[in-house]
Amino acid sequence: MKIDDNFYMKLAIDEAWKYQLLTYPNPAVGCVVVKDGKLLAIEAHKEAGIPHAEVNALKTALLSKESNSLLRALTKSSEIHEYLIKNHNNFFNDCEIYTTLEPCNHEGKTPSCAKLLSILKPKRVIIGSIDTNKIASGGIKTLEDENINVTTKVLEKECENLLIPFKSWQNKTSIFFKMAQTLNGSIDGQISSQRAKLYVHTLRDKIDLLLIGGNTIRTDKPTLDTRYIKGREPDIFIYSKNKVFSQNIPLFKVPNRKVIISDDLFKLLDYKFVMVEGVYNLLDILKDKIDFFILIISPKIRNGVNALNELNIDFEILHENYLGDEKIVFLKRKV
Amino acid sequence: MKIDDNFYMKLAIDEAWKYQLLTYPNPAVGCVVVKDGKLLAIEAHKEAGIPHAEVNALKTALLSKESNSLLRALTKSSEIHEYLIKNHNNFFNDCEIYTTLEPCNHEGKTPSCAKLLSILKPKRVIIGSIDTNKIASGGIKTLEDENINVTTKVLEKECENLLIPFKSWQNKTSIFFKMAQTLNGSIDGQISSQRAKLYVHTLRDKIDLLLIGGNTIRTDKPTLDTRYIKGREPDIFIYSKNKVFSQNIPLFKVPNRKVIISDDLFKLLDYKFVMVEGVYNLLDILKDKIDFFILIISPKIRNGVNALNELNIDFEILHENYLGDEKIVFLKRKV
Repeated sequence: MKIDDNFYMKLAIDEAWKYQLLTYPNPAVGCVVVKDGKLLAIEAHKEAGIPHAEVNALKTALLSKESNSLLRALTKSSEIHEYLIKNHNNFFNDCEIYTTLEPCNHEGKTPSCAKLLSILKPKRVIIGSIDTNKIASGGIKTLEDENINVTTKVLEKECENLLIPFKSWQNKTSIFFKMAQTLNGSIDGQISSQRAKLYVHTLRDKIDLLLIGGNTIRTDKPTLDTRYIKGREPDIFIYSKNKVFSQNIPLFKVPNRKVIISDDLFKLLDYKFVMVEGVYNLLDILKDKIDFFILIISPKIRNGVNALNELNIDFEILHENYLGDEKIVFLKRKV
Repeated sequence: MKIDDNFYMKLAIDEAWKYQLLTYPNPAVGCVVVKDGKLLAIEAHKEAGIPHAEVNALKTALLSKESNSLLRALTKSSEIHEYLIKNHNNFFNDCEIYTTLEPCNHEGKTPSCAKLLSILKPKRVIIGSIDTNKIASGGIKTLEDENINVTTKVLEKECENLLIPFKSWQNKTSIFFKMAQTLNGSIDGQISSQRAKLYVHTLRDKIDLLLIGGNTIRTDKPTLDTRYIKGREPDIFIYSKNKVFSQNIPLFKVPNRKVIISDDLFKLLDYKFVMVEGVYNLLDILKDKIDFFILIISPKIRNGVNALNELNIDFEILHENYLGDEKIVFLKRKV
């Protein structure tokens, strides 16, 4: 296998995917630091409000030189920025910095990542995709103005794929579909492991609205909360023509939650970030309105309910991770 | 992400999986060379008769120092061994060599990999799983006798998983099951891409015997050859109680091939390496006799035939690769 720009960019991409969606409303970004050929850091942006991928990677890279308990203890982006600017001692001058997205150029609570890099003066910055976000873009110009060597469009398609969720939630209501199945597409009974359920609760904590079918509500009588992680409880949209549901179903008893019972999908537009937890029938109804798909696959074969209707959907696999022994597959509908 | 022994071993493991089965009858092995912290080589054993993973990786590592058209042109294992022994100039003294399997200690046409490493004197050799093959084992002792620092059992479980096919074909008839399906387990119609078909022909070239169900033969009238790669044509075992088949079905016209029509699975024991190309019914019949499974998944949802009977099988995912836009998943039945 060739060890080149593509190789290091792929490490950054794979690291970023581990935190896909969890960075909402920020994009998933990965960053790798290579100093004079030595791989020092593979990091990602993990959650909105905590450091960007570049800041995490620069910190890890500098820590690889010497164990430094002061730097290690810093977690706030502004503190790490400040520390790096004061204490870099030209450490980064022979470094190559791979980042899946153009470093942000937006000065807010902290200096921008592009500004930080232009102070640290790495040998080269390698960028996957160009930031088209009006507020944050311009990072490449900031770097080049300081005579830093910039290489762009390395694994651009893969880096763009990483941004599909971000681009969907930037300017409009973003809707994704989550489904759990066995290896052979059976959706009957309890499929997912505890680990996968924990992940789903983590997603519920990020979204505004959870859409689910009326039949599932009547059959499973779910709570649809985030109890495993004690997170925010999303509002619920029960997609159903029949508006009558027993108020004893636990989901109605979760406090601080709005429950909408409707078959009018226009109501989704009141929300920013919507997850559909459904199976084949709901997929058939919603398939044209979905920005991306998440499939959780349990590695077992079971006889059971599968696609019942004529359902023809072609996907592109964007990425896969493990959730314990199970798989999570990120898919985009092929157009 | 931590950049440690596990990280580099994982690179070796992933590289080895790319050539899984294609190394038959040798094991799939991967090797990574890191020189003073610089990642120089990620290589694998690709096919029986051509260099082992270690030899490929040592060659690539030395080439990274300077472009050397003489070394680059060498492809025979014995020639590369000889070149490395004569021209290493202590290049490897500050190298760490990661190998998924204990380096072979078997002196045949070439010196063993363990002997080669003991001459090149790397700083450290990091080994995933210990070789239990009687002929090739003993590599660690050879290294330690030359005072080379050896670390063992790094990602041992993952390295052992890599050897599951090899261990199955070492001492007995090895049988694996290949199936192609859509994302939701539908097996109707043409599922796989040309790329996946090419891969299946590559597998057919490696095996001795291809087992297939009688109904498939009657319905599909296949050729079951290796025309895409012009490889060896495996013998065919048609699993069928009804022994009558039209001799006009193309598979009967492939020269130099034996076709067995039987429902006596004991006849499989006359062969060393058997692939079953089947679907759910044959999987149900053979599930207790299968050493490992290969599932080719096309990323689309289709309504169509899926597991019809009560079929309950739990798997462990050993590895996944891409075959173009499709996935190939290596599975082991959970016990």
